[in-house]
Amino acid sequence: MINIQLLLTGNELMSGDIVDSNSAMIAQELVLLGLSVRRKVAVSDDFDDLVDEISQMSKKADILIVNGGLGPTVDDLTAQALAKVSNTEIKEHPVALAHLKAWCEKRNYPLNGPNLKQAMLPEGCTIVTNSTGSAPGFMLSLNDCDIYCTPGVPRELATMLKDEILPRIENKFPNLSHHHVSRFHVFGIGESTLQKLVDEELPDWPEDIDLGFRASMPLLEIKLTTKSQHAQAIKQEWIDKIHHLLGDHLVGEINNKDRSFGDYLQELLLERKEKVTFAESCTGGILASSVTKVAGSSKVFDGSFVTYSNEMKHQLIGVREYTLVQHGAVSEQTVTEMANGALRKTHANWVVAVSGIAGPSGGTEEKPVGTVWLAWGSSAALKTCCLLIPAARHHFQHYVTAIGLDLIRRELIESAETPKYLIERSFTPKKVQ
Amino acid sequence: MINIQLLLTGNELMSGDIVDSNSAMIAQELVLLGLSVRRKVAVSDDFDDLVDEISQMSKKADILIVNGGLGPTVDDLTAQALAKVSNTEIKEHPVALAHLKAWCEKRNYPLNGPNLKQAMLPEGCTIVTNSTGSAPGFMLSLNDCDIYCTPGVPRELATMLKDEILPRIENKFPNLSHHHVSRFHVFGIGESTLQKLVDEELPDWPEDIDLGFRASMPLLEIKLTTKSQHAQAIKQEWIDKIHHLLGDHLVGEINNKDRSFGDYLQELLLERKEKVTFAESCTGGILASSVTKVAGSSKVFDGSFVTYSNEMKHQLIGVREYTLVQHGAVSEQTVTEMANGALRKTHANWVVAVSGIAGPSGGTEEKPVGTVWLAWGSSAALKTCCLLIPAARHHFQHYVTAIGLDLIRRELIESAETPKYLIERSFTPKKVQ
Repeated sequence: MINIQLLLTGNELMSGDIVDSNSAMIAQELVLLGLSVRRKVAVSDDFDDLVDEISQMSKKADILIVNGGLGPTVDDLTAQALAKVSNTEIKEHPVALAHLKAWCEKRNYPLNGPNLKQAMLPEGCTIVTNSTGSAPGFMLSLNDCDIYCTPGVPRELATMLKDEILPRIENKFPNLSHHHVSRFHVFGIGESTLQKLVDEELPDWPEDIDLGFRASMPLLEIKLTTKSQHAQAIKQEWIDKIHHLLGDHLVGEINNKDRSFGDYLQELLLERKEKVTFAESCTGGILASSVTKVAGSSKVFDGSFVTYSNEMKHQLIGVREYTLVQHGAVSEQTVTEMANGALRKTHANWVVAVSGIAGPSGGTEEKPVGTVWLAWGSSAALKTCCLLIPAARHHFQHYVTAIGLDLIRRELIESAETPKYLIERSFTPKKVQ
Repeated sequence: MINIQLLLTGNELMSGDIVDSNSAMIAQELVLLGLSVRRKVAVSDDFDDLVDEISQMSKKADILIVNGGLGPTVDDLTAQALAKVSNTEIKEHPVALAHLKAWCEKRNYPLNGPNLKQAMLPEGCTIVTNSTGSAPGFMLSLNDCDIYCTPGVPRELATMLKDEILPRIENKFPNLSHHHVSRFHVFGIGESTLQKLVDEELPDWPEDIDLGFRASMPLLEIKLTTKSQHAQAIKQEWIDKIHHLLGDHLVGEINNKDRSFGDYLQELLLERKEKVTFAESCTGGILASSVTKVAGSSKVFDGSFVTYSNEMKHQLIGVREYTLVQHGAVSEQTVTEMANGALRKTHANWVVAVSGIAGPSGGTEEKPVGTVWLAWGSSAALKTCCLLIPAARHHFQHYVTAIGLDLIRRELIESAETPKYLIERSFTPKKVQ
């Protein structure tokens, strides 16, 4: 078994100011090669500690991934520590310098002293390209251990891992038992419910297909890893069984790149050459931004409304004053008029309108914090529901947004199912005397 | 300095299936006593690895907190490993047994074999009460190191830390040197520029005040940690110097809870009893959601517009068709009319209007991807600028949003400074013949 170890460096990791998610990312990528992390160590930006750990770890590990400490500030000590351990000098590396120059030029940044520091690397090291950030990665071998020094910024690390480090590891160890992984997005069924469903409905789940979950709001990721050739042969059959079990709660397959709800929606709308709009109260712009964050969104979205106050609901999208007074801002009548108003003003084909009480204040006995009315669909067929989602403001806003997007997705795929959340979260506000 | 180390155990930690948040929690609690974690190690549920790490760590640490592996399953090996390292026997501990009995009785659970395993602990250890879970914690001393074995469930760990472990540590080390930390948010100056500024302008920075940075989009965090009584006495003087150096790029002090741009803006608007609105094209709702994600936002925000297409810019907020044809959607004239239209429709006091090319497509020679026009201010005094921000779509949208919020913040504090980004990012689209 290849001994892979991680060394994480950074004061912010030790102070608790940030939670380390990089080591989980590295582990997840390695799993795809059938590899696992044996041990990880985290230390602060202390030169002697770094030198000590790198020295010790390189003696036992076949591969050591050092994460963090490549930046421009005095805190960033990885290169110096590597030089000390490998008994080499720090020198300006021409490839690193060229990268930094190009990086700064492209962004019109000055290539100043602190930036230049990032080109000062242990003599003889190999540059590991950082295609998304300024700090070059590098690799050197010591005590029969390949040491990869990687940036702490998650996005930069992710790209470097996929494009540079994993291929090198595969190249070095050509006999890795390749695990094959299929990943799917699920919405509206929680991890433990899903596990229970599988246990109960698919009791003869094959031993050589691992079923894993990864909670990532709002979409849950499920992962099938085949561990043998036999498993590979029967995989599709079990994917079909999972699909049957989950119905339209299974949103889509994740291929090379991660997809958001906005991506799925854009694909479906593009197919039909249709557009969507929103009338948002409690989600305050998050529905719109979920669609517009996807490149090319102008083909499926013209515009939308954030109508927070009653006055705006009336003035901008024509909710009647009578409706607001008689039924309140959080009511079926109001979201219906919001939806119709937004459709009328934008000529979109599809709409989601939401009005609810995100909290922490603003709840009443009749409509507690977490109450939300949604109206969705087309002008020909508008549907409504009232849900109770008693969660913290941030979670409430994002979960309601996800539900709104999912409801439109289900319209677009012409789903005949009732999603579980519409049943489980259903709420009927009762007039309090 | 007291040497505190953490040992985290669990297969799920190593596979990347869960992200370790426990060690951040422990670190944050220790900071309150002026203590910091020197080193943390994570290994999977492997008996030999556990024995090896505990043995090594106890030789260097004054306090070792072992987290995880106390549960009822065969994976849970902490007690056995401790017994092996300390050369003692595993025995049923009467205090632990009583706890488990009471725990199960209260919940009407059977006290079965797997549960009973949790009472089997190294002879001579001291029980550390777990008031919120079944697995008892325990402590034993080895190699002059106090080893605390704690449960992996975050809620149980949190209570045990506060109620049991921290008081014991305080009791053992009565002369703890309390470190004091001050944290500030900065916007518009990057980490490397900031480091350079401090190096050049404040060359006699005191050795006993640590200056740290934490990049967290969009606000950069700077942290001053005093390490002595002398440092404590001179701290304010150096905070003033930093403030003077950064001017209004220093957004505010971070107290107990983290603050976003939306928080800062809400505070300033509340003081003046004023409201803000937005007319968003390329930011597509992110400006609105930055304000509405903060509880209480209805006091400072009534509503806003996402006008993505030209038609919506015209129909919803009255941008003239002539303007759109003559100058284009990404132009000073268009954002000015967008801003005025949004103010007119919402009666807000302040506005930000943005129109730009988020990419990756849609750029022209005259207006490349990354070009963005902003208009901001009040109807009495509207300002405009054109910037070039050649970044990936996600980064572009969020950076433009942050700039929009910062420009309004600067209006609200009546800043007389020109922010660096308006100078460095300034761009003049040139008509291409």
